[in-house]
Amino acid sequence: MAFDTALTTLLEIRHPILLAPMAVASGGALAAAVSDAGGLGFIGVGYADERWIEAEFQAAGSSPVGVGFITWHLLREPHRLEVALAHKPAAVIFSFGDCSPFIDAVKRAGAKVLMQVQTLAAAREAARLGADAIVAQGTEAGGHGGGRGTLPLVAAVVDAVAPIPVVAAGGIADGRGLAAALTLGAAGVLMGTRFYASTEALGHAEAKARLISGEGDATVRTTVFDRVRGYAWPTPYTGRALTNDFVRAYHGRESELDERMAEERERYAAAAAAGDLATAVVWAGENVDLIHDIAPAGEIVHRVVEQAQRAIAAAALSFHAAPSAYQDTQAD
Amino acid sequence: MAFDTALTTLLEIRHPILLAPMAVASGGALAAAVSDAGGLGFIGVGYADERWIEAEFQAAGSSPVGVGFITWHLLREPHRLEVALAHKPAAVIFSFGDCSPFIDAVKRAGAKVLMQVQTLAAAREAARLGADAIVAQGTEAGGHGGGRGTLPLVAAVVDAVAPIPVVAAGGIADGRGLAAALTLGAAGVLMGTRFYASTEALGHAEAKARLISGEGDATVRTTVFDRVRGYAWPTPYTGRALTNDFVRAYHGRESELDERMAEERERYAAAAAAGDLATAVVWAGENVDLIHDIAPAGEIVHRVVEQAQRAIAAAALSFHAAPSAYQDTQAD
Repeated sequence: MAFDTALTTLLEIRHPILLAPMAVASGGALAAAVSDAGGLGFIGVGYADERWIEAEFQAAGSSPVGVGFITWHLLREPHRLEVALAHKPAAVIFSFGDCSPFIDAVKRAGAKVLMQVQTLAAAREAARLGADAIVAQGTEAGGHGGGRGTLPLVAAVVDAVAPIPVVAAGGIADGRGLAAALTLGAAGVLMGTRFYASTEALGHAEAKARLISGEGDATVRTTVFDRVRGYAWPTPYTGRALTNDFVRAYHGRESELDERMAEERERYAAAAAAGDLATAVVWAGENVDLIHDIAPAGEIVHRVVEQAQRAIAAAALSFHAAPSAYQDTQAD
Repeated sequence: MAFDTALTTLLEIRHPILLAPMAVASGGALAAAVSDAGGLGFIGVGYADERWIEAEFQAAGSSPVGVGFITWHLLREPHRLEVALAHKPAAVIFSFGDCSPFIDAVKRAGAKVLMQVQTLAAAREAARLGADAIVAQGTEAGGHGGGRGTLPLVAAVVDAVAPIPVVAAGGIADGRGLAAALTLGAAGVLMGTRFYASTEALGHAEAKARLISGEGDATVRTTVFDRVRGYAWPTPYTGRALTNDFVRAYHGRESELDERMAEERERYAAAAAAGDLATAVVWAGENVDLIHDIAPAGEIVHRVVEQAQRAIAAAALSFHAAPSAYQDTQAD
């Protein structure tokens, strides 16, 4: 069982399943595992430096992988793109900012350019800039994102940027989500939180465990973790995380956090180093309800593929031809 | 072409498409038109009195229809339920509050009990209360709702309340949305904004026109319209509307509105009466991007049915068996 969509054709992959380039979590081993299973893994550079980028491409070995950047941060450290391109990534995903200064370099390096957007207006701009594919990311996503819901955003972006392939992101953790994305007209999905809950993801075991016990009702889009970590995220991006004591203390009371920043920044850094998740962040999407185990990433890919097929087949069975329905009625 | 889902069986309808009981907009003519096309229409009582309820059931004529209540408001005017039940509705939808005092009366009247929820926790409570079907409403919805995104909420509710049929709501305006809902495991959809943009919906023609020109990027969940109209909506419900001058003036500055309430309430009432939509509300979901005309409700139902079938068939075609793919590779 494999797929044939505009995304599998574009990226020369078997399954239209992409690993979100999660900062810290999406290292080379995870990216390679997703690619080896037929999807495409993306190393998530995030705020990391050149040494980290080198190490994670080494960890990916000979598997083809992509790489993803937080664009506003890359604009401050633009040489990191060249470091990544030297490893011949299959594709580059840009998120959260104006990637226009980087497009030519990526295309010259032979990599596909994917742009992740959170609004219909940004999707139109990505099409104008020449994106090879556009990731439409809904607010349900874990980590950084915007305010629009995945389901109507994906359909609207598909209409607006055709024939550019659209990838659905935000809230997708299983084959039902992939099936829904395909019916909306997307050519594939990008998943973060589901792959964070994988064997190969970088991150504390306790943080991964929280993804299993966490509930979608208890996630929140907030700026408090960016503030305390000193990352100057531009408006309107926020990060979705599990609600914890730190969120309860400061979300909606950001000015109080700003007032106590010196001491709180120190306390937060210590908590993060110690894995104290009452204070430290666990980024998570609303789809944590659908995550019940820490599994190898390749197994996750295969489960999603098989469940998507079943979901589409089941939906197709819910149709029946009207004439026979009328005949049934008349036979009664 | 018709459907066979747990919802069509429960409600004895041909298509798993429900009209949201939109206050003011969902009158008897619109409800009847949706039912006559094979779905089920719901008269939206909202804040209306007994005379309005009587008039709209008369307008529905002999078509089977349901009725929907804003539960916290019905708790203040509980006799309105009896007025509606006297008309033998096929089903009653309760939204936004504790409907437990009303369930027995509805069941005694022979109507099905649908409960609309915005969280997984509320879905579990609805199952415990004996809902015949549960509407999982995502934040993309127009009008009042909550904070969770439709796509992951629907899948999580399906898992939590099986085998109770789940209806997806929020962001659905076309057949792709119905197809996505079915693949997520829902048994049907409930649509509001798409039916507001119908010939039969009650409401200003200019408001309907705004649904066609409006963009999903420019909708917002806010409390400013409830405040100025004097409706004491409980936390955490907010209403999604098109951004207009009134939103720009007061959303995020609600205390300023409260300070000027006497004059602003008078000004707002005059604007609403005059159809001045720079001030008066137009409730709208994020799916306004997908709405391009004012159409008869029956035609909307048929379009959704046909497009859903095409969307599922197209998604099914994106699969192909792996062995033949390998053979293709080997033949190269």
